[in-house]
Amino acid sequence: MIVETIGYAARDTSGTLSAYKFERRDDLQPDDVAIEILFCGICHSDLHFARDDWGMTNYPIVPGHEIVGRVTALGDKVEGHEVGDLVAVGCMVDSCQKCDQCKADHEQFCREGMTMTYGSEDKHLGGITQGGFSKHIVVSENFVLHVPEGLDPAAAAPILCAGITVYSPMKAAGVGKDSRVAVVGLGGLGHMAVKVAAAMGAEVTVLSRTPDKQKDAQDLGAQKFLISSDEEAMEEAASSFDVIIDTVPVQHDINSYLPLLDIGGELVIVGQIGMLDEPNTGPLLFGGKRITGSLIGGIAETQEVLDFCAEKGVAPEIEMIDIQNINDAMERLENADVRYRFVIDMASLQGG
Amino acid sequence: MIVETIGYAARDTSGTLSAYKFERRDDLQPDDVAIEILFCGICHSDLHFARDDWGMTNYPIVPGHEIVGRVTALGDKVEGHEVGDLVAVGCMVDSCQKCDQCKADHEQFCREGMTMTYGSEDKHLGGITQGGFSKHIVVSENFVLHVPEGLDPAAAAPILCAGITVYSPMKAAGVGKDSRVAVVGLGGLGHMAVKVAAAMGAEVTVLSRTPDKQKDAQDLGAQKFLISSDEEAMEEAASSFDVIIDTVPVQHDINSYLPLLDIGGELVIVGQIGMLDEPNTGPLLFGGKRITGSLIGGIAETQEVLDFCAEKGVAPEIEMIDIQNINDAMERLENADVRYRFVIDMASLQGG
Repeated sequence: MIVETIGYAARDTSGTLSAYKFERRDDLQPDDVAIEILFCGICHSDLHFARDDWGMTNYPIVPGHEIVGRVTALGDKVEGHEVGDLVAVGCMVDSCQKCDQCKADHEQFCREGMTMTYGSEDKHLGGITQGGFSKHIVVSENFVLHVPEGLDPAAAAPILCAGITVYSPMKAAGVGKDSRVAVVGLGGLGHMAVKVAAAMGAEVTVLSRTPDKQKDAQDLGAQKFLISSDEEAMEEAASSFDVIIDTVPVQHDINSYLPLLDIGGELVIVGQIGMLDEPNTGPLLFGGKRITGSLIGGIAETQEVLDFCAEKGVAPEIEMIDIQNINDAMERLENADVRYRFVIDMASLQGG
Repeated sequence: MIVETIGYAARDTSGTLSAYKFERRDDLQPDDVAIEILFCGICHSDLHFARDDWGMTNYPIVPGHEIVGRVTALGDKVEGHEVGDLVAVGCMVDSCQKCDQCKADHEQFCREGMTMTYGSEDKHLGGITQGGFSKHIVVSENFVLHVPEGLDPAAAAPILCAGITVYSPMKAAGVGKDSRVAVVGLGGLGHMAVKVAAAMGAEVTVLSRTPDKQKDAQDLGAQKFLISSDEEAMEEAASSFDVIIDTVPVQHDINSYLPLLDIGGELVIVGQIGMLDEPNTGPLLFGGKRITGSLIGGIAETQEVLDFCAEKGVAPEIEMIDIQNINDAMERLENADVRYRFVIDMASLQGG
């Protein structure tokens, strides 16, 4: 009783994706929701995983964890979803549901380890979980979100990772009206940080090495633009931010950013970038500042950011592609040549 | 109308201290409290300042910012102190009293800059402020603390810097009953961190490179002792602390400590150590952990820690010295050869 579906998988460290037939569980668990995938965003970590940059990939791997789809079938005990509902799945598809972290709605920090949407041990079928670059997926209802009315289903997809990743730390930092938020790195996450912070009522500044993105930053909702190579402007901006969201996806130096934080301010690292260059403890001490790591967000908070985006009219800027163009898209993503998130139109995926 | 006093000053980057006559203001401001100094602790930053390690010393400089003394005279408007009272002065003697930080009892982050007890511009006499390695000091009542009954006056001195520096971040982190606190570096600050954390009800672990200090750690109130070179023990201790207070006074690597923090845990840096070695963002992200800088504490909180120590019977471990032995003491301090804080008995200072 196993259903075959089709997706795009990487087979080796080249990361090249190609059509791949594989199985989803058809023998639904009582809490399962079967979903036909309509759209899936492409996240930078999909690229890392496809190429095994983090040394944890088992091939073949079907990436994708920004999933929007429609419910096609339900397990016996599912109460929160109906067949035909528009639903979403993010970076996780399971967790122990019993530990302190799960009970505190921080499933991403589950003591037994969350089950990632792809690349984790598959508890039901064996092997590993496979992600959203595919036609179908089956997920426990505890990890299935509602897509609220008013959100464009395609544009909703990047909220599931890029959106929650920037929303969660800003919420935790109490960002609200008149908060002063700076965003470093104007990519998939960064552009959502600008939109979400602006929707929270914050005054938003984009920090960039070059002036190229100034107009884009303004169009996204940033009031200010600060060029990090402009020493005078950087000096003038000292102590002027409550929160800096640093979305730069590679190792880098944060020492020019720390003095920009006001007293008690927070620099949030959301990129899985390995080592940071040597941070200067001076600005940390003389200002009671902190460097915080943040990892996506819990399931309840992911629903919250979907609802927030619907209510505030926040939608990621997307470029829709057919899945046949996935490898081109991956290359362009690597070159930061997308404004700002690729979303795969899964109608382009035939068969399965 | 200027009174001459005597102290011990460094004259050059050798840091060697010798007797030095200088002036205190005798023309008391309405809010001034004149104090005869009875005891002064020796802090590691006194050594840095005496040698101009931080490039900000004007010579001659009289160090000392862990001051306990007795009130000898009062300005017209002083209401909170009486002649004869036992009082204390810490790292600051003035601030603007008007900015958001001063109003929030964070005078250490005063927007106009706090006036440090020594080495800052002296607003009244010109020149620079001079510290507590001296016979007398005159300080605005806003920066004069009460030494509560029940505290030994000599042992109270190190609370003014070492005590508040570790108390403030633990208070901010909500350390209390059953909190799991680790202390790195068992010197002047570290030994107070152990005592204060234990008095707060925490389970305290001392982290050390060698087993040498195990008995001392226990005597100070630590329940556990973890040797950082013991890989197996370090692995077992993963995710087992809510707060790590890092008092190591030189540049170092924190990457072996970060995995020891539990989810949402905090590593607090209290040493002015310049650069940190490259921290790994992995444990920060996969656990929502943070690295925080903390600088002494405000005046209200300094009174709070004095009261806390009196109430809980917490007293620094001190070795009393005569001021004539100050240079030996400085050398021993540099070699970490003191358990755990030198305090100068100012009765040994004649003249002035």
